[in-house]
Amino acid sequence: MDYQHLIEEVYQEVQEENLRGKVADYIPEIANVDPNKFGIALVDLKGNVFGAGDYKEQFSIQSISKVHTLTMVFKAFDTKLWSRVNVEPSGDPFNSIAQLEYEKGIPRNPFINAGALVITDALCSKFEKPIAQLTEFINEIAGDTCVKINPDVKNSEKNHGERNTALAYFLKSFKNFNNPIEEVLEVYFSQCAIAMSCVDLAKSFSFLANDGYSIFAERQILSESNARRINALMLTCGFYDEAGEFAFRVGLPGKSGVGGGVAAVMPHKFSIAVWSPELNEKGNSVKSIKALELLTNKLEFSLF
Amino acid sequence: MDYQHLIEEVYQEVQEENLRGKVADYIPEIANVDPNKFGIALVDLKGNVFGAGDYKEQFSIQSISKVHTLTMVFKAFDTKLWSRVNVEPSGDPFNSIAQLEYEKGIPRNPFINAGALVITDALCSKFEKPIAQLTEFINEIAGDTCVKINPDVKNSEKNHGERNTALAYFLKSFKNFNNPIEEVLEVYFSQCAIAMSCVDLAKSFSFLANDGYSIFAERQILSESNARRINALMLTCGFYDEAGEFAFRVGLPGKSGVGGGVAAVMPHKFSIAVWSPELNEKGNSVKSIKALELLTNKLEFSLF
Amino acid sequence: MDYQHLIEEVYQEVQEENLRGKVADYIPEIANVDPNKFGIALVDLKGNVFGAGDYKEQFSIQSISKVHTLTMVFKAFDTKLWSRVNVEPSGDPFNSIAQLEYEKGIPRNPFINAGALVITDALCSKFEKPIAQLTEFINEIAGDTCVKINPDVKNSEKNHGERNTALAYFLKSFKNFNNPIEEVLEVYFSQCAIAMSCVDLAKSFSFLANDGYSIFAERQILSESNARRINALMLTCGFYDEAGEFAFRVGLPGKSGVGGGVAAVMPHKFSIAVWSPELNEKGNSVKSIKALELLTNKLEFSLF
Amino acid sequence: MDYQHLIEEVYQEVQEENLRGKVADYIPEIANVDPNKFGIALVDLKGNVFGAGDYKEQFSIQSISKVHTLTMVFKAFDTKLWSRVNVEPSGDPFNSIAQLEYEKGIPRNPFINAGALVITDALCSKFEKPIAQLTEFINEIAGDTCVKINPDVKNSEKNHGERNTALAYFLKSFKNFNNPIEEVLEVYFSQCAIAMSCVDLAKSFSFLANDGYSIFAERQILSESNARRINALMLTCGFYDEAGEFAFRVGLPGKSGVGGGVAAVMPHKFSIAVWSPELNEKGNSVKSIKALELLTNKLEFSLF
Repeated sequence: MDYQHLIEEVYQEVQEENLRGKVADYIPEIANVDPNKFGIALVDLKGNVFGAGDYKEQFSIQSISKVHTLTMVFKAFDTKLWSRVNVEPSGDPFNSIAQLEYEKGIPRNPFINAGALVITDALCSKFEKPIAQLTEFINEIAGDTCVKINPDVKNSEKNHGERNTALAYFLKSFKNFNNPIEEVLEVYFSQCAIAMSCVDLAKSFSFLANDGYSIFAERQILSESNARRINALMLTCGFYDEAGEFAFRVGLPGKSGVGGGVAAVMPHKFSIAVWSPELNEKGNSVKSIKALELLTNKLEFSLF
Repeated sequence: MDYQHLIEEVYQEVQEENLRGKVADYIPEIANVDPNKFGIALVDLKGNVFGAGDYKEQFSIQSISKVHTLTMVFKAFDTKLWSRVNVEPSGDPFNSIAQLEYEKGIPRNPFINAGALVITDALCSKFEKPIAQLTEFINEIAGDTCVKINPDVKNSEKNHGERNTALAYFLKSFKNFNNPIEEVLEVYFSQCAIAMSCVDLAKSFSFLANDGYSIFAERQILSESNARRINALMLTCGFYDEAGEFAFRVGLPGKSGVGGGVAAVMPHKFSIAVWSPELNEKGNSVKSIKALELLTNKLEFSLF
Repeated sequence: MDYQHLIEEVYQEVQEENLRGKVADYIPEIANVDPNKFGIALVDLKGNVFGAGDYKEQFSIQSISKVHTLTMVFKAFDTKLWSRVNVEPSGDPFNSIAQLEYEKGIPRNPFINAGALVITDALCSKFEKPIAQLTEFINEIAGDTCVKINPDVKNSEKNHGERNTALAYFLKSFKNFNNPIEEVLEVYFSQCAIAMSCVDLAKSFSFLANDGYSIFAERQILSESNARRINALMLTCGFYDEAGEFAFRVGLPGKSGVGGGVAAVMPHKFSIAVWSPELNEKGNSVKSIKALELLTNKLEFSLF
Repeated sequence: MDYQHLIEEVYQEVQEENLRGKVADYIPEIANVDPNKFGIALVDLKGNVFGAGDYKEQFSIQSISKVHTLTMVFKAFDTKLWSRVNVEPSGDPFNSIAQLEYEKGIPRNPFINAGALVITDALCSKFEKPIAQLTEFINEIAGDTCVKINPDVKNSEKNHGERNTALAYFLKSFKNFNNPIEEVLEVYFSQCAIAMSCVDLAKSFSFLANDGYSIFAERQILSESNARRINALMLTCGFYDEAGEFAFRVGLPGKSGVGGGVAAVMPHKFSIAVWSPELNEKGNSVKSIKALELLTNKLEFSLF
């Protein structure tokens, strides 16, 4: 398969369609990103990199980092984790608090904000220096010292963090939060502020396409069966309340971020990261999703 | 792969675990089924059949028939269908009406009751003799005159049909229902009353494992890409509000019915049907799900 | 108290404010009413009538008739009624079905549509000729053969009745509906189609201002304590999801209808009916509410 | 009217019925109160006090203090207040956060927790020493230096305050919270920890029965029309999701607290406070409500 040609073709076709959305504007650091940025990087199971456009440029990966954190925490707690967070699609917006109330403090899944806060709380319970260790972990599986935490983004997130703080206190009221809220939020906002390039991001997802083994870290990151489970979770819950649509149109497990990035995997084939800042009304990158749809159509395969 | 051996092993292990649930009791015809029935049938892409237990015995496939109807309607309307029904997981029970109100008459997906009613309404718009033609279609893709519609089940469904009737009128109030309600409900309850054996059911799902081509009908049932889309829908929405859990534990696209059946596919490998009447509290067959979980664990593959 | 002068003053001031809303447009018979109609009639406890504007003209009282039906049914069933319908404000729109689902088929109160359907069902259980007997009852307490049921309105209601039909089937699925749905809906739509003038309507509410005794019927309609209870219900639930606002601004028990009418009582003083077709977004008559607010302000009394 | 005789009769009858409920147990200071305490105090418009049982003993008035705070804030902001908080009954439990989400940060009314937090926030915006000034205000309108803030209760409330903290952050995320959250919560928990006797509490409500004029403070506390509005609010929203039931059975404006107290008024007649710690499942005092119901039945009047 000539992935380089394929990616360039996809890149070209998406650019020609001139799709527009709206850059997220809740913090200035995201709002001010050049909306025309667009990059694609694909990494096959041997570690070959194929790229197009701005694929080497760092961007704010935001919620995509929830997959990295979940991986560390899943490794540490295994199935015990699922008493604190469910694995069902949400159907509600990512930051909804109503569902959490109806379901008595057990978030629907680890990728909505409430669930990610529980995961970060679990991270803080198990790791002494959670931010440093998370950074180190991502660097390891990306095979490069690539992770930067943008301090301005982190501070802006913090200053707009009332809703996440509310979720944390609400979780605590249901006894589903164990560490000091301030500490956990510090970690949470730091992980949201991670900047990476498409190529490094795709590399960091490689183990999920490879039955849990990272060719960059040269070790088994998760058991084969737990790696599969993270893929299942991404497929059913990785795109907020548009997860069904993404499965339907694209058919790959993946995770999006409000910075316009999407990371996805085709199991036993490749991992891929796409970035374009303009979002649709569900908060997913318009061009990134289109690129992945074209890609699976051209490849004539998806999961299904 | 020695599928026969595999299936017998799974059958044996599930039997030894002695899992219990509760047979659905809303109609006598379902309530009175022997709770100890248990069958598995797997059909590979060449049409070889592997079976264990009561796999040749007919049972009420109930909601599994929604996949057959959807296939006919999807073929007839293609993408126009998706203006009337969404493709997102529901998160609510299968017969919930609240979500339909919040979302102004557009059901979340074609497998919750409201969505299935829209699909059946669409069937009635396109096919002159919907029940006869649906029966014929299933027979064709199962490669056998196997479908029976149990008249007692149908009448019982009808007599307990107030909630579905309410959903139909509610859809009509949102102009998302085109045919006379009585007529559509007649078809709907008939399709719920279809009885098939595991082996025939697995055969009828074979085209979904085979890029849309049925080796039994010897024709392309759906385009490769639309067959994939039905698989995606089954994965994200096929098990009511337990779809995430099923994806997480089993990782195959599938559809369950309140009669205790589950039909599923492993794309490019096989289709499979399992039946055991006792259900968990979400309405899915306890043993059938366990059997599929064991199977994918033993095979060491799933979608992911 | 010079009620005639007071009412004319109120009438004049409201006219000068030139408040506008939107005439209900779901059926042509309501949509085509002259939007400039405006009438007020006040009836004191001696039966003296004071009126202004179009107070002698008949209009479609719509949901106001729910008070008359409730009165008959409350008399017949007394406290047994409250196992089938609650007495709490709804907070949701009048035709919401979601709440009914969450609360397992027990409507919040007798004035939302679901509750009114239960009341009408109870009417049909107790009265042989429910429409004729309801008409007769209203004529009796209004002291005049005044009630007309507009057949065009009734038929239009029926033709737009899918949502109410859905509610009825939904209630039946919860075993909170005893009579054939068609029959009950016939009565329901008939009662919605009642036409009365402000003066007759005010007279028919007189017993609620008079501890249950009607000076027109010359008999005790309800016990003093049950009459009080209907007033309490009107205060907390009589104006859909604007009941709190009406209590806050006006402070009288009352009931509004989508035809633009409002009937209200000041206990131990008077009953009153106001009519003006243009509605605010909550479905209550803009001018009628304003008129009642001015009235209680000028009188310097309300319930409180 | 021989109020003393009446109250003693009511007291006796309630005691004989031996109604039981459950003392609130979320904080030890409330949980450990003697469940057999029971007191009634009625104050007429001349300031005569009539009492029975433990009516001179202090208890934790909890949410009843929300009426005092609202009075101060309503006086300070007048109608501007209602852009920040609505006046509709809630239908949901007092500490629900879901409704706040659906209604974009505008609480349903000033008596549910979210609304009371907005009111306390407004208090902090207008008053330099909110706790001291609130205390002073209640003392003034009760005609006595009677208010104590129980420091143990306050600290316990604080230690169980995650849910209220979540509500405050959630309000802040909707820009409906202006002061530092810690500061406002300090005031909020202090006001919940106010201890008063029935007699002092009834006196402090006297102005609401008297068109806004306090005979104890010897001044107009609120305009006649605003006093009426607070009564309307208490009637529609004063008893959590049991407000309709209370209006239906008792028919007086009032406010309950989780400590088992209820304060109510009969406009132009009297104010009354009742206390008994055991609560029904909606969180309202079983005996207190029964006592008020008997009282209005015996008096043969209520609002209606």
